[in-house]
Amino acid sequence: MIILNTIEEIREQVKKFKNEGLSVGLVPTMGYLHEGHESLIKRASKENDKVVVSIFINPTQFGENEDLDSYPRDLERDTIICENAGADIIFNPNKEEIYNNDFSTFVEMNNLSNELCGKSRPTHFGGVCTVVSKLFNIVKPDKAYFGQKDAQQLAIIKRMVIDLNFDVEVIGCPIIREKDGLAKSSRNSYLSEEERKIATILNKALNHAKKIIFDGEKNSNIIVEAIKEVINKEPRATIDYIEVVDSVSIKPIEYIEMSVLVAIAVYIGKARLIDNFTYEV
Amino acid sequence: MIILNTIEEIREQVKKFKNEGLSVGLVPTMGYLHEGHESLIKRASKENDKVVVSIFINPTQFGENEDLDSYPRDLERDTIICENAGADIIFNPNKEEIYNNDFSTFVEMNNLSNELCGKSRPTHFGGVCTVVSKLFNIVKPDKAYFGQKDAQQLAIIKRMVIDLNFDVEVIGCPIIREKDGLAKSSRNSYLSEEERKIATILNKALNHAKKIIFDGEKNSNIIVEAIKEVINKEPRATIDYIEVVDSVSIKPIEYIEMSVLVAIAVYIGKARLIDNFTYEV
Repeated sequence: MIILNTIEEIREQVKKFKNEGLSVGLVPTMGYLHEGHESLIKRASKENDKVVVSIFINPTQFGENEDLDSYPRDLERDTIICENAGADIIFNPNKEEIYNNDFSTFVEMNNLSNELCGKSRPTHFGGVCTVVSKLFNIVKPDKAYFGQKDAQQLAIIKRMVIDLNFDVEVIGCPIIREKDGLAKSSRNSYLSEEERKIATILNKALNHAKKIIFDGEKNSNIIVEAIKEVINKEPRATIDYIEVVDSVSIKPIEYIEMSVLVAIAVYIGKARLIDNFTYEV
Repeated sequence: MIILNTIEEIREQVKKFKNEGLSVGLVPTMGYLHEGHESLIKRASKENDKVVVSIFINPTQFGENEDLDSYPRDLERDTIICENAGADIIFNPNKEEIYNNDFSTFVEMNNLSNELCGKSRPTHFGGVCTVVSKLFNIVKPDKAYFGQKDAQQLAIIKRMVIDLNFDVEVIGCPIIREKDGLAKSSRNSYLSEEERKIATILNKALNHAKKIIFDGEKNSNIIVEAIKEVINKEPRATIDYIEVVDSVSIKPIEYIEMSVLVAIAVYIGKARLIDNFTYEV
């Protein structure tokens, strides 16, 4: 495995792969890798001849008062995880390599980006779409892998690939959880020991919602209220949103009819955690 | 030469070219081709093994009260021009092929798109960037050709290619003019016989500005006023803008120091015509 820092180097390397007829899978990450990322790299390694993992904390997807500066990093540990999971290249550019001084172009999305996380993070998905467009153009992967944990991001990237005609297959991969059900996330590192225990409330609330849907409940409001009731039992958990939406369009739905995404964002202390499940009728 | 209407067909055809190691040049147009387009196609044909001319009247680059519906079209004549100029493929998709019903993604540009034509056409360059991004992703050209007549568009596309890391070389080609100096444009077809004569005022005014710059004038205001004076002699010409800007950043400049773009937009009757020249100090 090699680590490359410049666009020129990665382009040259990928060109060599393509000239040899090898397929390339891309796993875009912000580093501080956990078993969620690991599962993406492993899957990419199974389905492609070569795997590129990008590690770049993308400033344009952070809002003004968000955690850009404190976002956790550990390239040494990330390197070991990538190597063991079957990556061939880590692409680890610095900020200037990705955003030049006169940078002026943004990929923006209407509709899908205004719901859920887009409400409390209005510039977030523009930043995501912009950097993913850049990574697609730099690496030119055959397939790109994203976690279902960021369900809205996955839906948005799928939409962007269709809309802008990227010749990339986007593959969503299942949420990986801790033993007690907490969805793996780099931001879990913000949690104190006590908060870490409280954080299981997200998964518990979603499991409760799953149960009442399995039992026949189709009314979104009732499902939202049921989730709210579970989370509100925990005084140190603050709800950002609880929503029942169409899993493709991310539009709120009143009654569950087709493929649905139940998504929540909850503050535990300073950490804003998200979790979700999808349900096909 | 063949005409293809679907993204799938053109992708398949270009893939065949690439597998044979052939280079591909793209000339994006809205059709109703004139000698300006012809010069782009000829140049592309010299510099590439295969040439794709896209003909697509892009709705997203027209404002609400602009000339989308009346924009001139003549595919039969365009086909002959393309064939004679050395094109291999015309890509002529319909609106639905390019913009699906749930289309939600836009490529937007700050800074460069707010000046000149961006002032009177605020959504124009977002539409241009979006459709050109799509065409780049569909055709994956090695080189793409744009006319210097649309100087701001050319600067914006060069900026976009850098910012989003498109692996495409953007080539600007000189303005082609009628014998009396009028810049060739599909929109010249809107002019009545009388307006056609009046329209030469744009080139005359720019030639006057060129002369005073050659004679040593460096003050933008004086250059703008000199152009204004020439155009205002023609009562049926209405100035939209006259600007002296940096030819890369499109930012207004007070004194000519480096590479400068002198650009004007003038209404002659209902037709909004543009013209420009660049000057390297």
